[in-house]
Amino acid sequence: MTTAVKEEELFTIVDHGTVTSPEGFEAGGFHAGLKRKRKDLGWILSEVPAVSAGVFTTNTFQAPPLKVTQDSLVGGTLQGVVVNSGNANAFTGKKGLEDAYEMRRQFAKVMNLKQSETAVTSTGVIGEYLPMEAITKGIAEIPTYQGTTSGKEFAEAIVTTDKVTKELAVTCKIDGKEVTIGGAAKGSGMIKPNMATMLSFITTDAAVEKTALQTALNDITNRTYNMITVDGETSTNDMVLLMANGKAENLPLYEKHPDWSTFIAALDYVSEELAKMIAKDGEGATKLVEVHVDGAESKEGASAIAKSVVGSNLVKTAIHGSDANWGRIVCAIGYSGEKVDEESLSISIGPIKVVDKGVTTAFSEEDAQQYLKSDTIHIYVDLNKGKEKAVAWGCDLSYDYVRINASYRT
Amino acid sequence: MTTAVKEEELFTIVDHGTVTSPEGFEAGGFHAGLKRKRKDLGWILSEVPAVSAGVFTTNTFQAPPLKVTQDSLVGGTLQGVVVNSGNANAFTGKKGLEDAYEMRRQFAKVMNLKQSETAVTSTGVIGEYLPMEAITKGIAEIPTYQGTTSGKEFAEAIVTTDKVTKELAVTCKIDGKEVTIGGAAKGSGMIKPNMATMLSFITTDAAVEKTALQTALNDITNRTYNMITVDGETSTNDMVLLMANGKAENLPLYEKHPDWSTFIAALDYVSEELAKMIAKDGEGATKLVEVHVDGAESKEGASAIAKSVVGSNLVKTAIHGSDANWGRIVCAIGYSGEKVDEESLSISIGPIKVVDKGVTTAFSEEDAQQYLKSDTIHIYVDLNKGKEKAVAWGCDLSYDYVRINASYRT
Repeated sequence: MTTAVKEEELFTIVDHGTVTSPEGFEAGGFHAGLKRKRKDLGWILSEVPAVSAGVFTTNTFQAPPLKVTQDSLVGGTLQGVVVNSGNANAFTGKKGLEDAYEMRRQFAKVMNLKQSETAVTSTGVIGEYLPMEAITKGIAEIPTYQGTTSGKEFAEAIVTTDKVTKELAVTCKIDGKEVTIGGAAKGSGMIKPNMATMLSFITTDAAVEKTALQTALNDITNRTYNMITVDGETSTNDMVLLMANGKAENLPLYEKHPDWSTFIAALDYVSEELAKMIAKDGEGATKLVEVHVDGAESKEGASAIAKSVVGSNLVKTAIHGSDANWGRIVCAIGYSGEKVDEESLSISIGPIKVVDKGVTTAFSEEDAQQYLKSDTIHIYVDLNKGKEKAVAWGCDLSYDYVRINASYRT
Repeated sequence: MTTAVKEEELFTIVDHGTVTSPEGFEAGGFHAGLKRKRKDLGWILSEVPAVSAGVFTTNTFQAPPLKVTQDSLVGGTLQGVVVNSGNANAFTGKKGLEDAYEMRRQFAKVMNLKQSETAVTSTGVIGEYLPMEAITKGIAEIPTYQGTTSGKEFAEAIVTTDKVTKELAVTCKIDGKEVTIGGAAKGSGMIKPNMATMLSFITTDAAVEKTALQTALNDITNRTYNMITVDGETSTNDMVLLMANGKAENLPLYEKHPDWSTFIAALDYVSEELAKMIAKDGEGATKLVEVHVDGAESKEGASAIAKSVVGSNLVKTAIHGSDANWGRIVCAIGYSGEKVDEESLSISIGPIKVVDKGVTTAFSEEDAQQYLKSDTIHIYVDLNKGKEKAVAWGCDLSYDYVRINASYRT
């Protein structure tokens, strides 16, 4: 985020923030028996129905739990979310859909919620039916864990091959009231034995109008979650949910509210940080890669180029090997589908300019190699044509990516 | 090729066939000093100007030699082609274009050809100027190598990171005359230190009408070269050239000639075999992967799905690990951009059906694992919707791919 300093004036980061940092949310997680040992069942509850929005995978085989959650979102409010990891309930046909509805019914009953205000989410193996016995037994046990587990355990319960949990929260002022936004996410490339699933849950105690909330989530998703690439795979289960329960008692936010931009900046920050945590935790990743494209004639063009570069296996392996192989960056720009003038193209790897308006500079390979050993690699592409820009995030491609994904499933 | 048996009746494979198998072509190659030791300058000459066609990369940064060759092709005939490896003369601006024209001028002069009937091609490092001293000295030496080197040396001179050379020839009967088609290609993922370049040169002594030749090359390229994926990268220098010199003295071929389909079958076979050789020689590859999609409603849909599956890093790593991870195949079909019905989708891995109309079969994981240890892996996807089909070729993703591409350039 290039404007991080300015934006940090608009909001404050909460120490150990999580989905339960906002007022009126509780969450938790525990081991219900879907995975061998680790936590695999989590939930989020709001004291009151929360105005909610969601975005869902573009994969044509959208998994059954996503269909059930979309069904719940028709009313525009959610009060509870139940998530299991270890099994994605994807490509499971009619029985899978029945299982997802049954999971919603059971959780709603135990928590005393309306089914139409209950979301369900699954992540893990695809093509296997949900172990409904474990799900049923687990859901029934949730009340015994309430109060002893919280947002931290929720974040633990949703991970699969992730090496770290991903959560944060920020506060900002809306109408003079303190508003908090919390988030937890998972995703690291793919789930043993199947595929990358990115899940993100954002909670806030802000009061927000329904349509404005969905529009904001769409925009922010396009700029953050949709700009990360670990391995170019779009899972059947990707989903982002945003719940706003209004407990901060501000005047409901919408596009013309004087503090709308503050709220958006805070929400954007939470989403971008979660997205970056996912990219950095990409399977086998040793470095976070940020590709900044500037000087484009269109936003879409800038995004396409940034994603093409960050997704290139050749760029990713070069970065893994700390090789300032700018020709691969040029190549990936060239096949992005966008028209780019060679004569106006400039490229920098961190502070080192390697191409200046179409001409290679006599840069120091040693300096570049040194820079490429950093934890975070910035690549700057300037088309010198227009004013539009975009940033995309990804990671390097390592031996470990192959090791993790070539190993047999059992 | 599913109809290999039928097609082999139409043509015969030539032992040790190459670009000089057709009448009236000579070729050669030697070490001119662009690479450290290996051959790096090659040429093809036709006794007479040959009706010619070409297809060129879609990368927006099309390299200068491609522009020069397109300029030569305006007249529709070529008599000579000069190729260097070790330097792609790509992203080299105006000077690069001048160098490519100069290379054409010098080769045409030494060989006594019209510049407008001379093609130039380069493959190797991008972003560096051609070492014109070595090029000039090399071109001047070509006459001393004529007769002592041939198609075999040409095939050696065009490779970069390729582990094997790629060449073949077939003969068929056209108007009762023996017609020969020869081909040589290079490509294996990317060139140290830069990118995949695929080059293919096809020669034939058939007489073919100009427009029909270009149309045939376009169609065949879409079905063969454009259906291979090693790492999803589209180089700045990809090119296929086809020269038909008419020395077989058949009545010129065109779409309504009674033997057109024989000629197309033979040309298609040469292209498909070269394309498969490239896929199999993919950097780090240990297996050739063929994805067959059937039962699609459109040709484009079938192609998009086949390419999505063969290009998936997750499918490629699973195949590397001999893991029958069909969920990853489902996922890649799902994000191909084509609408597919879960209920009608069937998938087989070699002889083993793993998904039958949307339902997982109780297949033997051991049998599947055994099959996946083969040299060539066939994946069959049946959408059970229409009659269109497509095949795409690729390879597995191994540790060696990362090793080759993460190593520093020097």
